[in-house]
Amino acid sequence: MFLARVFVSPKSTVSDPEGRTIQGGLRQLGFDTVDTVRAGKFFQISLGEANREEAVDKIREMCEKLLSNPIIEEYSFELEEVTPSP
Amino acid sequence: MFLARVFVSPKSTVSDPEGRTIQGGLRQLGFDTVDTVRAGKFFQISLGEANREEAVDKIREMCEKLLSNPIIEEYSFELEEVTPSP
Repeated sequence: MFLARVFVSPKSTVSDPEGRTIQGGLRQLGFDTVDTVRAGKFFQISLGEANREEAVDKIREMCEKLLSNPIIEEYSFELEEVTPSP
Repeated sequence: MFLARVFVSPKSTVSDPEGRTIQGGLRQLGFDTVDTVRAGKFFQISLGEANREEAVDKIREMCEKLLSNPIIEEYSFELEEVTPSP
């Protein structure tokens, strides 16, 4: 069993209005050392694959098909083997 | 200068309708080994603090004040020192 942590972000060439809005909000709150903010999505997915290679393939396929929009977003992920709770 | 990667998730005791919807979508696509899905937010923030302790304090304060809702969400972050581009 694996726990995947998936990170989805707008590509650096794509404008990110949510990130810009958050940047503006942080500066208004007095965080004036904030330079850029990119806003994205974070998923924690547990899946019952038996081995790491299969789990990596599945997560990559999920990212391409549902979790990200590969035209405007990029993704990365980490995979951790976990012991299922009894 | 530092780059922070901030992860915000619903607390495990809080229901996560977005995560459940994504879980359902993944299963419909044939990913039947998917167990749970938690959906959250991911921010990449560059900030011009001079030292790590200050940067950690600032990011924690940003998380408490704007990036997360501490009542229903939990956050974590990683901080990496980066060289500013000239």
